[in-house]
Amino acid sequence: MEKMKRAERMVAVLQVLMSKPNTLIPLTVLAERFGAAKSTISEDLLAVKESLQFTGQGRLETVSGAAGGVRYIPEISAKEAREFLLELAERLSSQDRVLAGGFLYMTDLLYDPAVLRPLGLIFAGYFREKKPEVVVTIETKGIPLALVTAEALGVPMVIIRHGNKVTEGTAVSINYVSGSSKRIQSMTLGRRALEPGRRVLIIDDFMKAGGTALGMINLLKEFEANVVGVGVLMETPREKEPKLVEDYLSLLQLKELDPVKAIVKVVAQDISL
Amino acid sequence: MEKMKRAERMVAVLQVLMSKPNTLIPLTVLAERFGAAKSTISEDLLAVKESLQFTGQGRLETVSGAAGGVRYIPEISAKEAREFLLELAERLSSQDRVLAGGFLYMTDLLYDPAVLRPLGLIFAGYFREKKPEVVVTIETKGIPLALVTAEALGVPMVIIRHGNKVTEGTAVSINYVSGSSKRIQSMTLGRRALEPGRRVLIIDDFMKAGGTALGMINLLKEFEANVVGVGVLMETPREKEPKLVEDYLSLLQLKELDPVKAIVKVVAQDISL
Repeated sequence: MEKMKRAERMVAVLQVLMSKPNTLIPLTVLAERFGAAKSTISEDLLAVKESLQFTGQGRLETVSGAAGGVRYIPEISAKEAREFLLELAERLSSQDRVLAGGFLYMTDLLYDPAVLRPLGLIFAGYFREKKPEVVVTIETKGIPLALVTAEALGVPMVIIRHGNKVTEGTAVSINYVSGSSKRIQSMTLGRRALEPGRRVLIIDDFMKAGGTALGMINLLKEFEANVVGVGVLMETPREKEPKLVEDYLSLLQLKELDPVKAIVKVVAQDISL
Repeated sequence: MEKMKRAERMVAVLQVLMSKPNTLIPLTVLAERFGAAKSTISEDLLAVKESLQFTGQGRLETVSGAAGGVRYIPEISAKEAREFLLELAERLSSQDRVLAGGFLYMTDLLYDPAVLRPLGLIFAGYFREKKPEVVVTIETKGIPLALVTAEALGVPMVIIRHGNKVTEGTAVSINYVSGSSKRIQSMTLGRRALEPGRRVLIIDDFMKAGGTALGMINLLKEFEANVVGVGVLMETPREKEPKLVEDYLSLLQLKELDPVKAIVKVVAQDISL
Protein backbone atom coordinates (compact mmCIF):
# COMPACT_ATOMS: atom_id res chain seq x y z
CA MET A 1 0.00 0.00 0.00
CA GLU A 2 1.22 3.44 -0.94
CA LYS A 3 2.03 5.72 1.98
CA MET A 4 -0.99 7.85 2.91
CA LYS A 5 -0.94 11.56 3.46
CA ARG A 6 -2.15 13.04 6.75
CA ALA A 7 -5.52 14.22 5.37
CA GLU A 8 -6.19 10.92 3.62
CA ARG A 9 -5.41 9.01 6.78
CA MET A 10 -7.63 11.26 8.91
CA VAL A 11 -10.55 10.56 6.55
CA ALA A 12 -9.91 6.80 6.47
CA VAL A 13 -9.53 6.62 10.25
CA LEU A 14 -12.85 8.41 10.75
CA GLN A 15 -14.52 6.02 8.32
CA VAL A 16 -13.21 2.99 10.21
CA LEU A 17 -14.38 4.44 13.54
CA MET A 18 -17.82 5.52 12.26
CA SER A 19 -18.36 2.10 10.66
CA LYS A 20 -18.21 0.59 14.15
CA PRO A 21 -19.79 3.25 16.36
CA ASN A 22 -19.34 2.88 20.13
CA THR A 23 -16.67 0.23 19.61
CA LEU A 24 -13.33 0.79 21.29
CA ILE A 25 -10.56 0.33 18.72
CA PRO A 26 -6.97 0.09 20.01
CA LEU A 27 -4.50 2.57 18.51
CA THR A 28 -2.22 -0.32 17.60
CA VAL A 29 -4.94 -1.73 15.32
CA LEU A 30 -5.25 1.59 13.49
CA ALA A 31 -1.47 1.96 13.34
CA GLU A 32 -1.09 -1.47 11.77
CA ARG A 33 -3.96 -1.00 9.38
CA PHE A 34 -2.63 2.29 8.02
CA GLY A 35 1.06 1.44 8.22
CA ALA A 36 1.81 4.39 10.49
CA ALA A 37 3.43 4.84 13.87
CA LYS A 38 1.18 4.93 16.93
CA SER A 39 2.30 8.47 17.65
CA THR A 40 1.28 9.50 14.13
CA ILE A 41 -2.18 7.97 14.58
CA SER A 42 -2.47 9.81 17.91
CA GLU A 43 -1.83 13.12 16.14
CA ASP A 44 -4.33 12.20 13.41
CA LEU A 45 -6.95 11.47 16.04
CA LEU A 46 -6.42 14.81 17.74
CA ALA A 47 -6.94 16.56 14.42
CA VAL A 48 -10.07 14.47 13.66
CA LYS A 49 -11.43 15.27 17.11
CA GLU A 50 -11.09 18.98 16.46
CA SER A 51 -12.68 18.75 13.02
CA LEU A 52 -15.74 17.02 14.46
CA GLN A 53 -16.43 19.92 16.82
CA PHE A 54 -17.88 21.86 13.91
CA THR A 55 -20.85 19.59 13.22
CA GLY A 56 -22.39 18.53 16.54
CA GLN A 57 -23.13 15.12 15.02
CA GLY A 58 -20.77 12.98 17.04
CA ARG A 59 -17.40 12.91 18.76
CA LEU A 60 -14.36 10.79 19.43
CA GLU A 61 -13.78 9.42 22.89
CA THR A 62 -10.26 8.38 23.80
CA VAL A 63 -9.56 5.85 26.53
CA SER A 64 -5.96 5.77 27.72
CA GLY A 65 -4.05 2.90 29.25
CA ALA A 66 -3.19 -0.63 28.19
CA ALA A 67 -6.80 -1.54 27.39
CA GLY A 68 -7.32 1.84 25.78
CA GLY A 69 -8.18 3.05 22.33
CA VAL A 70 -10.65 5.31 20.63
CA ARG A 71 -14.35 5.08 19.83
CA TYR A 72 -16.82 7.12 17.81
CA ILE A 73 -19.93 8.26 19.72
CA PRO A 74 -22.76 9.23 17.34
CA GLU A 75 -24.77 12.24 18.47
CA ILE A 76 -27.46 14.64 17.33
CA SER A 77 -27.36 18.33 18.20
CA ALA A 78 -30.20 19.82 20.28
CA LYS A 79 -31.09 22.08 17.35
CA GLU A 80 -31.25 19.27 14.82
CA ALA A 81 -33.25 17.10 17.25
CA ARG A 82 -35.77 19.90 17.79
CA GLU A 83 -36.19 20.56 14.07
CA PHE A 84 -36.55 16.86 13.35
CA LEU A 85 -39.26 16.36 16.01
CA LEU A 86 -41.19 19.43 14.82
CA GLU A 87 -41.16 18.11 11.27
CA LEU A 88 -42.15 14.61 12.40
CA ALA A 89 -45.05 16.01 14.46
CA GLU A 90 -46.25 17.85 11.40
CA ARG A 91 -46.02 14.78 9.18
CA LEU A 92 -48.03 12.81 11.76
CA SER A 93 -50.69 15.53 12.07
CA SER A 94 -52.09 14.61 8.69
CA GLN A 95 -55.79 13.87 8.25
CA ASP A 96 -55.19 10.81 6.08
CA ARG A 97 -53.37 9.14 8.99
CA VAL A 98 -56.58 8.84 11.02
CA LEU A 99 -57.76 5.23 10.93
CA ALA A 100 -61.17 3.83 11.82
CA GLY A 101 -61.29 2.86 15.50
CA GLY A 102 -59.33 5.90 16.58
CA PHE A 103 -55.86 4.70 15.59
CA LEU A 104 -53.13 6.82 14.08
CA TYR A 105 -51.26 5.33 11.11
CA MET A 106 -47.54 5.66 11.78
CA THR A 107 -45.86 2.39 10.81
CA ASP A 108 -44.53 3.86 7.56
CA LEU A 109 -42.45 6.25 9.69
CA LEU A 110 -41.74 3.78 12.51
CA TYR A 111 -40.12 1.37 10.03
CA ASP A 112 -38.15 3.88 7.97
CA PRO A 113 -34.41 3.94 8.76
CA ALA A 114 -34.16 7.63 7.79
CA VAL A 115 -36.76 8.50 10.46
CA LEU A 116 -35.52 5.95 12.99
CA ARG A 117 -31.87 7.02 12.97
CA PRO A 118 -32.43 10.50 14.48
CA LEU A 119 -34.96 9.07 16.95
CA GLY A 120 -32.37 6.55 18.17
CA LEU A 121 -29.83 9.34 18.56
CA ILE A 122 -32.29 11.46 20.54
CA PHE A 123 -33.13 8.62 22.97
CA ALA A 124 -29.43 7.73 23.24
CA GLY A 125 -28.45 11.35 23.87
CA TYR A 126 -31.05 11.71 26.59
CA PHE A 127 -30.34 8.44 28.40
CA ARG A 128 -26.60 7.95 27.78
CA GLU A 129 -25.55 9.34 31.17
CA LYS A 130 -27.77 6.75 32.89
CA LYS A 131 -25.40 4.13 31.42
CA PRO A 132 -27.94 1.55 30.22
CA GLU A 133 -26.39 -1.84 29.46
CA VAL A 134 -29.30 -3.14 27.41
CA VAL A 135 -32.39 -1.75 25.64
CA VAL A 136 -35.60 -3.71 26.23
CA THR A 137 -38.79 -3.49 24.18
CA ILE A 138 -41.92 -5.55 23.52
CA GLU A 139 -42.88 -6.85 20.10
CA THR A 140 -43.74 -5.63 17.46
CA LYS A 141 -43.91 -1.94 16.55
CA GLY A 142 -41.35 -0.78 19.10
CA ILE A 143 -38.60 -3.12 17.87
CA PRO A 144 -37.06 -0.88 15.16
CA LEU A 145 -37.06 2.09 17.57
CA ALA A 146 -35.40 0.01 20.29
CA LEU A 147 -32.80 -1.30 17.86
CA VAL A 148 -31.66 2.11 16.62
CA THR A 149 -31.49 3.31 20.23
CA ALA A 150 -29.41 0.27 21.19
CA GLU A 151 -27.14 0.87 18.21
CA ALA A 152 -26.69 4.55 19.09
CA LEU A 153 -25.81 3.54 22.67
CA GLY A 154 -23.64 0.61 21.62
CA VAL A 155 -25.55 -1.97 23.68
CA PRO A 156 -27.62 -5.05 22.79
CA MET A 157 -31.41 -5.19 22.55
CA VAL A 158 -33.80 -7.64 24.18
CA ILE A 159 -37.35 -8.28 22.93
CA ILE A 160 -40.16 -9.30 25.27
CA ARG A 161 -42.67 -11.54 23.48
CA HIS A 162 -46.46 -11.47 23.72
CA GLY A 163 -48.15 -14.55 25.13
CA ASN A 164 -46.32 -17.56 26.47
CA LYS A 165 -44.22 -18.86 23.59
CA VAL A 166 -41.44 -20.87 25.13
CA THR A 167 -39.09 -22.01 22.41
CA GLU A 168 -36.02 -20.63 24.09
CA GLY A 169 -35.62 -22.60 27.28
CA THR A 170 -36.94 -21.48 30.66
CA ALA A 171 -38.94 -18.27 30.51
CA VAL A 172 -40.69 -15.89 32.87
CA SER A 173 -44.24 -14.77 32.08
CA ILE A 174 -46.38 -12.10 33.64
CA ASN A 175 -50.00 -11.11 33.25
CA TYR A 176 -50.73 -7.44 32.85
CA VAL A 177 -53.68 -5.20 32.14
CA SER A 178 -53.27 -3.06 29.10
CA GLY A 179 -54.29 0.21 30.73
CA SER A 180 -56.56 1.55 28.05
CA SER A 181 -58.21 -1.62 26.74
CA LYS A 182 -58.55 -3.14 30.25
CA ARG A 183 -57.87 -6.57 28.74
CA ILE A 184 -55.65 -9.04 30.56
CA GLN A 185 -52.68 -10.09 28.45
CA SER A 186 -49.39 -11.82 29.08
CA MET A 187 -45.79 -11.18 28.17
CA THR A 188 -42.76 -13.45 28.33
CA LEU A 189 -39.00 -13.17 28.48
CA GLY A 190 -36.55 -16.06 28.27
CA ARG A 191 -34.26 -16.52 31.27
CA ARG A 192 -31.10 -16.47 29.20
CA ALA A 193 -32.12 -13.35 27.26
CA LEU A 194 -31.15 -11.07 30.14
CA GLU A 195 -28.52 -11.56 32.82
CA PRO A 196 -29.60 -10.63 36.37
CA GLY A 197 -28.87 -7.14 37.69
CA ARG A 198 -28.55 -5.30 34.38
CA ARG A 199 -29.11 -1.56 33.86
CA VAL A 200 -32.07 -1.49 31.47
CA LEU A 201 -33.57 1.19 29.23
CA ILE A 202 -37.17 0.48 28.13
CA ILE A 203 -38.13 1.79 24.69
CA ASP A 204 -41.60 1.56 23.10
CA ASP A 205 -43.55 3.31 20.37
CA PHE A 206 -46.66 4.45 22.22
CA MET A 207 -47.92 5.02 25.75
CA LYS A 208 -51.61 5.35 26.52
CA ALA A 209 -52.23 4.46 30.15
CA GLY A 210 -48.82 2.86 30.61
CA GLY A 211 -50.08 -0.63 31.43
CA THR A 212 -47.66 -2.26 29.04
CA ALA A 213 -44.71 -0.26 30.38
CA LEU A 214 -45.70 -1.15 33.95
CA GLY A 215 -45.96 -4.82 32.94
CA MET A 216 -42.48 -4.65 31.47
CA ILE A 217 -41.09 -3.04 34.63
CA ASN A 218 -42.69 -5.76 36.75
CA LEU A 219 -41.42 -8.54 34.47
CA LEU A 220 -37.92 -7.04 34.59
CA LYS A 221 -38.02 -7.20 38.41
CA GLU A 222 -37.85 -10.98 38.00
CA PHE A 223 -34.48 -10.40 36.35
CA GLU A 224 -33.37 -8.07 39.16
CA ALA A 225 -32.99 -5.43 36.48
CA ASN A 226 -32.34 -1.81 37.32
CA VAL A 227 -34.68 0.15 35.02
CA VAL A 228 -32.71 3.36 34.45
CA GLY A 229 -35.19 4.92 32.02
CA VAL A 230 -38.36 4.58 29.96
CA GLY A 231 -38.64 6.26 26.57
CA VAL A 232 -41.63 6.29 24.23
CA LEU A 233 -42.04 7.96 20.89
CA MET A 234 -45.57 9.18 21.55
CA GLU A 235 -47.95 9.53 24.48
CA THR A 236 -51.48 10.67 24.99
CA PRO A 237 -51.77 13.76 27.24
CA ARG A 238 -51.56 13.03 30.98
CA GLU A 239 -54.50 15.26 31.71
CA LYS A 240 -56.69 13.13 29.46
CA GLU A 241 -55.23 9.79 30.43
CA PRO A 242 -53.47 9.37 33.82
CA LYS A 243 -50.35 7.19 33.55
CA LEU A 244 -49.50 4.07 35.55
CA VAL A 245 -45.82 4.93 35.12
CA GLU A 246 -44.51 8.19 36.56
CA ASP A 247 -41.07 8.73 35.18
CA TYR A 248 -40.64 8.49 31.42
CA LEU A 249 -39.58 10.49 28.39
CA SER A 250 -41.92 10.99 25.46
CA LEU A 251 -40.82 12.74 22.28
CA LEU A 252 -44.26 13.48 20.86
CA GLN A 253 -47.71 14.02 22.28
CA LEU A 254 -50.97 13.05 20.59
CA LYS A 255 -53.01 16.12 21.58
CA GLU A 256 -56.11 15.23 19.63
CA LEU A 257 -57.43 12.34 17.54
CA ASP A 258 -61.03 12.36 16.37
CA PRO A 259 -61.80 9.51 13.97
CA VAL A 260 -65.25 10.88 13.16
CA LYS A 261 -64.16 14.37 12.20
CA ALA A 262 -60.79 13.05 10.98
CA ILE A 263 -58.88 15.51 13.15
CA VAL A 264 -55.39 14.72 14.42
CA LYS A 265 -52.91 16.93 16.22
CA VAL A 266 -49.44 15.76 17.22
CA VAL A 267 -46.98 18.10 18.95
CA ALA A 268 -43.26 17.79 19.68
CA GLN A 269 -42.22 17.77 23.33
CA ASP A 270 -39.45 19.98 24.64
CA ILE A 271 -36.46 17.70 25.11
CA SER A 272 -33.27 18.89 26.74
CA LEU A 273 -30.39 16.95 25.25
CA MET B 1 -17.30 30.08 12.56
CA GLU B 2 -13.57 30.11 12.00
CA LYS B 3 -12.45 29.20 8.51
CA MET B 4 -11.73 25.47 8.25
CA LYS B 5 -8.64 23.95 6.73
CA ARG B 6 -8.92 21.46 3.88
CA ALA B 7 -8.23 18.37 6.05
CA GLU B 8 -10.68 19.50 8.74
CA ARG B 9 -13.35 20.09 6.14
CA MET B 10 -12.77 16.70 4.52
CA VAL B 11 -13.25 15.00 7.87
CA ALA B 12 -16.38 17.01 8.72
CA VAL B 13 -17.88 16.42 5.26
CA LEU B 14 -17.37 12.66 5.59
CA GLN B 15 -19.01 12.74 9.02
CA VAL B 16 -22.05 14.54 7.64
CA LEU B 17 -22.35 12.07 4.75
CA MET B 18 -21.82 8.95 6.89
CA SER B 19 -24.39 10.20 9.43
CA LYS B 20 -27.01 9.97 6.68
CA PRO B 21 -25.91 6.98 4.60
CA ASN B 22 -27.54 6.53 1.18
CA THR B 23 -28.98 10.04 1.35
CA LEU B 24 -28.23 12.34 -1.55
CA ILE B 25 -26.95 15.65 -0.19
CA PRO B 26 -26.69 18.59 -2.62
CA LEU B 27 -23.27 20.22 -2.87
CA THR B 28 -24.87 23.59 -2.15
CA VAL B 29 -25.99 22.31 1.26
CA LEU B 30 -22.42 21.27 2.12
CA ALA B 31 -21.03 24.52 0.74
CA GLU B 32 -23.41 26.58 2.88
CA ARG B 33 -22.83 24.48 5.96
CA PHE B 34 -19.05 24.78 5.81
CA GLY B 35 -18.89 28.33 4.45
CA ALA B 36 -16.94 27.27 1.38
CA ALA B 37 -17.38 27.63 -2.38
CA LYS B 38 -19.06 24.79 -4.26
CA SER B 39 -15.88 24.24 -6.25
CA THR B 40 -13.91 23.89 -3.01
CA ILE B 41 -16.35 21.29 -1.71
CA SER B 42 -16.04 19.44 -5.04
CA GLU B 43 -12.29 19.21 -4.59
CA ASP B 44 -12.74 18.07 -0.98
CA LEU B 45 -15.09 15.33 -2.13
CA LEU B 46 -12.61 14.07 -4.72
CA ALA B 47 -9.95 13.84 -2.04
CA VAL B 48 -12.34 12.07 0.36
CA LYS B 49 -13.33 9.63 -2.39
CA GLU B 50 -9.70 8.68 -2.93
CA SER B 51 -9.01 8.27 0.78
CA LEU B 52 -11.90 5.84 1.11
CA GLN B 53 -10.41 3.50 -1.47
CA PHE B 54 -7.97 2.25 1.15
CA THR B 55 -10.52 0.67 3.47
CA GLY B 56 -13.14 -1.19 1.37
CA GLN B 57 -15.77 -0.13 3.91
CA GLY B 58 -17.81 2.24 1.80
CA ARG B 59 -17.62 4.80 -0.96
CA LEU B 60 -18.93 8.15 -2.14
CA GLU B 61 -21.33 8.25 -5.08
CA THR B 62 -21.63 11.53 -6.94
CA VAL B 63 -24.74 12.41 -8.95
CA SER B 64 -24.27 15.30 -11.35
CA GLY B 65 -26.88 17.72 -12.65
CA ALA B 66 -29.39 20.09 -11.10
CA ALA B 67 -30.87 17.42 -8.81
CA GLY B 68 -27.39 16.11 -8.07
CA GLY B 69 -25.26 15.78 -5.00
CA VAL B 70 -23.26 13.20 -3.17
CA ARG B 71 -24.15 10.20 -1.00
CA TYR B 72 -22.24 7.76 1.17
CA ILE B 73 -22.77 4.07 0.35
CA PRO B 74 -21.77 1.82 3.27
CA GLU B 75 -20.06 -1.41 2.23
CA ILE B 76 -18.23 -4.39 3.62
CA SER B 77 -15.25 -5.94 1.85
CA ALA B 78 -15.48 -9.56 0.68
CA LYS B 79 -12.61 -10.44 3.01
CA GLU B 80 -14.20 -8.83 6.06
CA ALA B 81 -17.56 -10.45 5.23
CA ARG B 82 -15.96 -13.89 4.97
CA GLU B 83 -14.07 -13.52 8.25
CA PHE B 84 -17.20 -12.26 9.99
CA LEU B 85 -19.37 -15.16 8.80
CA LEU B 86 -16.72 -17.73 9.77
CA GLU B 87 -16.53 -16.26 13.25
CA LEU B 88 -20.33 -16.11 13.55
CA ALA B 89 -20.63 -19.76 12.45
CA GLU B 90 -18.16 -20.71 15.13
CA ARG B 91 -19.99 -18.75 17.82
CA LEU B 92 -23.24 -20.47 16.82
CA SER B 93 -21.66 -23.94 16.83
CA SER B 94 -21.56 -23.94 20.60
CA GLN B 95 -23.06 -26.82 22.59
CA ASP B 96 -24.76 -24.55 25.09
CA ARG B 97 -26.87 -23.07 22.28
CA VAL B 98 -28.76 -26.34 21.78
CA LEU B 99 -32.24 -25.98 23.24
CA ALA B 100 -34.72 -28.72 24.15
CA GLY B 101 -37.01 -29.42 21.19
CA GLY B 102 -34.22 -29.13 18.66
CA PHE B 103 -33.97 -25.34 18.55
CA LEU B 104 -30.79 -23.32 18.28
CA TYR B 105 -30.48 -20.31 20.59
CA MET B 106 -29.45 -17.33 18.52
CA THR B 107 -31.54 -14.33 19.59
CA ASP B 108 -28.64 -12.85 21.59
CA LEU B 109 -26.77 -12.47 18.30
CA LEU B 110 -29.85 -11.65 16.17
CA TYR B 111 -30.63 -8.64 18.40
CA ASP B 112 -27.08 -7.31 18.81
CA PRO B 113 -26.32 -4.22 16.70
CA ALA B 114 -22.62 -5.15 16.48
CA VAL B 115 -23.55 -8.49 14.86
CA LEU B 116 -26.44 -7.10 12.82
CA ARG B 117 -24.52 -4.25 11.17
CA PRO B 118 -22.15 -6.46 9.12
CA LEU B 119 -25.02 -8.82 8.26
CA GLY B 120 -27.03 -5.91 6.86
CA LEU B 121 -24.02 -4.80 4.82
CA ILE B 122 -23.55 -8.32 3.44
CA PHE B 123 -27.21 -8.63 2.35
CA ALA B 124 -27.12 -5.09 0.94
CA GLY B 125 -23.89 -5.75 -0.95
CA TYR B 126 -25.29 -8.92 -2.49
CA PHE B 127 -28.70 -7.52 -3.49
CA ARG B 128 -27.90 -3.85 -4.20
CA GLU B 129 -27.66 -4.32 -7.97
CA LYS B 130 -31.20 -5.76 -7.97
CA LYS B 131 -32.32 -2.29 -6.88
CA PRO B 132 -34.84 -3.25 -4.17
CA GLU B 133 -37.15 -0.38 -3.17
CA VAL B 134 -38.30 -1.93 0.10
CA VAL B 135 -37.21 -4.73 2.45
CA VAL B 136 -40.04 -6.99 3.67
CA THR B 137 -39.92 -9.35 6.63
CA ILE B 138 -42.33 -11.18 8.94
CA GLU B 139 -42.44 -10.65 12.69
CA THR B 140 -40.58 -11.17 15.03
CA LYS B 141 -37.03 -12.48 14.92
CA GLY B 142 -36.28 -11.32 11.38
CA ILE B 143 -37.14 -7.67 12.06
CA PRO B 144 -33.72 -6.45 13.28
CA LEU B 145 -32.00 -8.20 10.35
CA ALA B 146 -34.43 -6.66 7.87
CA LEU B 147 -33.99 -3.21 9.39
CA VAL B 148 -30.19 -3.17 9.16
CA THR B 149 -30.44 -4.43 5.57
CA ALA B 150 -32.95 -1.69 4.72
CA GLU B 151 -30.68 0.88 6.36
CA ALA B 152 -27.62 -0.34 4.43
CA LEU B 153 -29.64 -0.13 1.20
CA GLY B 154 -31.27 3.20 2.09
CA VAL B 155 -34.84 1.93 1.66
CA PRO B 156 -37.80 1.52 4.06
CA MET B 157 -38.84 -1.74 5.74
CA VAL B 158 -42.26 -3.36 5.84
CA ILE B 159 -43.30 -5.93 8.46
CA ILE B 160 -45.85 -8.66 7.72
CA ARG B 161 -47.81 -9.55 10.85
CA HIS B 162 -48.85 -12.99 12.04
CA GLY B 163 -52.56 -13.69 12.25
CA ASN B 164 -55.25 -11.27 11.19
CA LYS B 165 -54.73 -8.16 13.29
CA VAL B 166 -56.40 -5.34 11.42
CA THR B 167 -55.74 -2.10 13.24
CA GLU B 168 -54.32 -0.36 10.22
CA GLY B 169 -57.17 -0.09 7.75
CA THR B 170 -57.80 -2.58 4.94
CA ALA B 171 -55.45 -5.52 4.99
CA VAL B 172 -54.71 -8.61 2.92
CA SER B 173 -54.38 -11.98 4.67
CA ILE B 174 -53.16 -15.31 3.39
CA ASN B 175 -53.11 -18.80 4.86
CA TYR B 176 -49.90 -20.73 4.51
CA VAL B 177 -48.43 -24.00 5.68
CA SER B 178 -45.26 -23.63 7.65
CA GLY B 179 -43.25 -26.23 5.69
CA SER B 180 -41.66 -28.05 8.57
CA SER B 181 -44.41 -27.95 11.20
CA LYS B 182 -47.18 -28.60 8.65
CA ARG B 183 -49.44 -26.29 10.62
CA ILE B 184 -51.76 -23.88 8.84
CA GLN B 185 -51.09 -20.30 9.85
CA SER B 186 -51.99 -16.90 8.51
CA MET B 187 -50.09 -13.68 7.78
CA THR B 188 -51.38 -10.18 7.09
CA LEU B 189 -50.17 -7.00 5.47
CA GLY B 190 -52.01 -3.66 5.49
CA ARG B 191 -52.94 -2.27 2.09
CA ARG B 192 -51.25 1.06 2.70
CA ALA B 193 -48.04 -0.50 3.99
CA LEU B 194 -46.85 -1.28 0.46
CA GLU B 195 -47.59 0.53 -2.79
CA PRO B 196 -48.39 -1.72 -5.75
CA GLY B 197 -45.61 -2.75 -8.13
CA ARG B 198 -42.64 -2.27 -5.79
CA ARG B 199 -39.29 -4.06 -6.11
CA VAL B 200 -39.10 -6.09 -2.89
CA LEU B 201 -36.28 -7.84 -1.06
CA ILE B 202 -37.46 -10.46 1.45
CA ILE B 203 -35.25 -10.92 4.52
CA ASP B 204 -35.78 -13.49 7.29
CA ASP B 205 -33.73 -15.16 9.99
CA PHE B 206 -34.24 -18.84 9.24
CA MET B 207 -35.41 -21.12 6.43
CA LYS B 208 -36.40 -24.70 7.06
CA ALA B 209 -38.71 -25.89 4.29
CA GLY B 210 -39.39 -22.38 3.03
CA GLY B 211 -43.13 -22.39 3.69
CA THR B 212 -43.02 -18.99 5.33
CA ALA B 213 -40.97 -17.49 2.49
CA LEU B 214 -43.38 -18.97 -0.05
CA GLY B 215 -46.32 -17.54 1.89
CA MET B 216 -44.68 -14.11 1.86
CA ILE B 217 -44.08 -14.33 -1.89
CA ASN B 218 -47.73 -15.29 -2.44
CA LEU B 219 -48.99 -12.50 -0.17
CA LEU B 220 -46.78 -10.00 -2.00
CA LYS B 221 -48.39 -11.02 -5.32
CA GLU B 222 -51.55 -9.34 -4.01
CA PHE B 223 -49.50 -6.14 -3.97
CA GLU B 224 -48.20 -6.77 -7.51
CA ALA B 225 -44.74 -6.73 -5.96
CA ASN B 226 -41.66 -7.74 -7.91
CA VAL B 227 -39.68 -9.94 -5.51
CA VAL B 228 -36.10 -9.27 -6.60
CA GLY B 229 -34.47 -11.42 -3.92
CA VAL B 230 -34.84 -13.57 -0.81
CA GLY B 231 -32.15 -13.56 1.87
CA VAL B 232 -32.03 -15.61 5.06
CA LEU B 233 -29.39 -15.72 7.75
CA MET B 234 -29.51 -19.50 8.17
CA GLU B 235 -30.95 -22.50 6.38
CA THR B 236 -31.08 -26.22 6.97
CA PRO B 237 -29.25 -28.23 4.26
CA ARG B 238 -31.26 -28.75 1.06
CA GLU B 239 -30.35 -32.40 0.92
CA LYS B 240 -31.96 -32.94 4.33
CA GLU B 241 -34.91 -30.62 3.79
CA PRO B 242 -36.11 -29.82 0.24
CA LYS B 243 -37.08 -26.14 -0.14
CA LEU B 244 -40.38 -24.73 -1.42
CA VAL B 245 -38.47 -21.67 -2.65
CA GLU B 246 -35.77 -22.15 -5.29
CA ASP B 247 -33.86 -18.92 -5.52
CA TYR B 248 -32.54 -17.46 -2.28
CA LEU B 249 -29.34 -16.49 -0.52
CA SER B 250 -28.41 -17.97 2.84
CA LEU B 251 -25.36 -16.83 4.78
CA LEU B 252 -25.08 -19.78 7.15
CA GLN B 253 -26.07 -23.44 7.04
CA LEU B 254 -27.15 -25.51 10.03
CA LYS B 255 -25.36 -28.75 9.13
CA GLU B 256 -26.24 -30.63 12.26
CA LEU B 257 -28.36 -30.16 15.37
CA ASP B 258 -28.86 -33.03 17.76
CA PRO B 259 -30.69 -32.00 20.93
CA VAL B 260 -30.10 -35.37 22.60
CA LYS B 261 -26.34 -35.49 22.13
CA ALA B 262 -26.14 -31.66 22.28
CA ILE B 263 -24.27 -31.49 18.99
CA VAL B 264 -24.53 -28.42 16.72
CA LYS B 265 -22.57 -27.54 13.62
CA VAL B 266 -23.07 -24.28 11.72
CA VAL B 267 -20.99 -23.46 8.63
CA ALA B 268 -20.55 -20.24 6.67
CA GLN B 269 -21.67 -20.26 3.03
CA ASP B 270 -19.46 -18.98 0.26
CA ILE B 271 -20.85 -15.59 -0.71
CA SER B 272 -19.56 -13.65 -3.68
CA LEU B 273 -19.97 -9.96 -2.91
